[in-house]
Amino acid sequence: MRWTSRDRSVTLADVADRAGVSSMTVSKVLRDTGSISPQTRERVLAAVGELGYVKNTLAGQLSSRKSTTIGVVIPSVSDVIFAQMLSGINTVIRPQGLSMLIAESLFSPSLERDTLSSLLSMQPAGLIISGGTEKLDDTLSLLEMRRCPLVSVWDADASFGDRTIGVSHYAAGKMMAEHLLQRGYRQPAYIGSQLHLDVCARHRFDGFRRHLEQHGHSLKSVISEDLPRQSSSGNTLTEQLIQQHPEVTSIFYLNDAMAIGGLRWLSDKGYQCPSQIAVAGFNGTSLEQTIQTRLTTLDVPRSEIGREAAQSIVDLLQGLDAAPDLTIDLTLVQGTTT
Amino acid sequence: MRWTSRDRSVTLADVADRAGVSSMTVSKVLRDTGSISPQTRERVLAAVGELGYVKNTLAGQLSSRKSTTIGVVIPSVSDVIFAQMLSGINTVIRPQGLSMLIAESLFSPSLERDTLSSLLSMQPAGLIISGGTEKLDDTLSLLEMRRCPLVSVWDADASFGDRTIGVSHYAAGKMMAEHLLQRGYRQPAYIGSQLHLDVCARHRFDGFRRHLEQHGHSLKSVISEDLPRQSSSGNTLTEQLIQQHPEVTSIFYLNDAMAIGGLRWLSDKGYQCPSQIAVAGFNGTSLEQTIQTRLTTLDVPRSEIGREAAQSIVDLLQGLDAAPDLTIDLTLVQGTTT
Repeated sequence: MRWTSRDRSVTLADVADRAGVSSMTVSKVLRDTGSISPQTRERVLAAVGELGYVKNTLAGQLSSRKSTTIGVVIPSVSDVIFAQMLSGINTVIRPQGLSMLIAESLFSPSLERDTLSSLLSMQPAGLIISGGTEKLDDTLSLLEMRRCPLVSVWDADASFGDRTIGVSHYAAGKMMAEHLLQRGYRQPAYIGSQLHLDVCARHRFDGFRRHLEQHGHSLKSVISEDLPRQSSSGNTLTEQLIQQHPEVTSIFYLNDAMAIGGLRWLSDKGYQCPSQIAVAGFNGTSLEQTIQTRLTTLDVPRSEIGREAAQSIVDLLQGLDAAPDLTIDLTLVQGTTT
Repeated sequence: MRWTSRDRSVTLADVADRAGVSSMTVSKVLRDTGSISPQTRERVLAAVGELGYVKNTLAGQLSSRKSTTIGVVIPSVSDVIFAQMLSGINTVIRPQGLSMLIAESLFSPSLERDTLSSLLSMQPAGLIISGGTEKLDDTLSLLEMRRCPLVSVWDADASFGDRTIGVSHYAAGKMMAEHLLQRGYRQPAYIGSQLHLDVCARHRFDGFRRHLEQHGHSLKSVISEDLPRQSSSGNTLTEQLIQQHPEVTSIFYLNDAMAIGGLRWLSDKGYQCPSQIAVAGFNGTSLEQTIQTRLTTLDVPRSEIGREAAQSIVDLLQGLDAAPDLTIDLTLVQGTTT
């Protein structure tokens, strides 16, 4: 495809011409350097406004080899989990005059590599990359060769870059297993999807299963290869689970959305929750959205992870050393479903 | 603050040196032009891989005055509404080799202008800007002076740029008023917040009130100046409304999140919904997240708006004319709450 150029550029010379001064004078006014009379300054700024001149920081970046863009790679821009993390990042970097360039990997290792490569070609001031997606060897090589601070987020079980900030998903799985056992639920089950893509979800599943096995429980599970990690899939997979294992009395889902789909199916079929079947989710995203029935879930401090990661980038850009990796605690939110 | 530069740049010359060829040969291999022997090509690519060379497209963009970045300005990156629109944009631009630079306005006119100004300084290939935030005069001047295609989204009632794609929020308000009247609800009320910031929400309120007045109903409302547009605020404001106007029998909320907060308060206080009080939201974001009680809402096709906007940018970049403005239909989703 051919990109047509609509070149209506307003140059420094155009502004100088309109203001009746030299380009150098315009440049001084815009950089706020040198001694310029208030009248001249005013005339230049008026011309800038009239012509809509926009300072070309792209050129500035190139000449100084510094950029003010933080590249962020996350699995999905439409997942509220990551959206709230982005918001946390923005609250820290905006006051520093930095902006975000956000790219999606969609849990695809090769898309993640391509996306990272094009972010690096923009010479970002820093990079924040989400764990949870398998890293290809050449992705890791690219990250090794980077010329900017790198903070990894989300997956505290896999450390890379200057600093890692996240939760332990393996520990999260154990935590939920322990909770269900303490509440007296036996015959536990797990429902999830696309565990081969989502590394963190796989760690939660492993932690959940291991803890149950250590306490003498064998785990029933229904894991789809390809259904989306959404509410509708929770519905479908709960029906499959109950048909295959009508004896289960508690279900841990990959995330809140799938748990809510499951709850809806159970409610429609007349199951009492939690007296007949207990249900638990993950992420803490249901807290805002469920009405009478409040889902038991593990709340991940999404905004805090974003803020902490952004602060680390700012620190590194100022020449400070990276703080040690940080594993942030999850909170078990006791709802009405366990 | 001072940005330290970590200059470990790998240059074309470094790659040429490692591969034992000229820089011109490396450049030809990377651009895939000229006739290069397969052996030389392989040697160059091996050196590129070993050294982690990243092609400097920033320089490429500057020299050709073309960029592959689409700037996107939305009110909030943490609102799932906009997150799903971003996802729609990405599905269209990614196959075209374009990427997004996303910035938040947080419904602040001055932050929107600043954000837009820094996006423009990156010389984006195109811009997608959300309506719904008041535009300052100098924001409009900046948009007039832009040197790239511009598509505005979300607010079909306010057209600007090469093309506007969105829903009519005024019509949405009328649609919900009509729905409540047809279902037989009298004593209608409205609950919202920050209408002075959120232009679209104000249009919905106006359409709702106007339609009710035309049918002889005076509207009761509780509108906060500063509470966040979240679930917890719906809770608080519903309590205020019921204390002031115990006679109301139906409530239209600014968005689904606030409606769900309201529903939760009503449910906790023992009100039957809809027999005692009917409740309706806006956005269609509750569809995935509510369990037994399904909120009546107006569903906005968020991903479709994003895809359509991105396709318009791609068309304009290819030199095609902009299609006429597009007002996308809302769907009224009948839940169990009206």
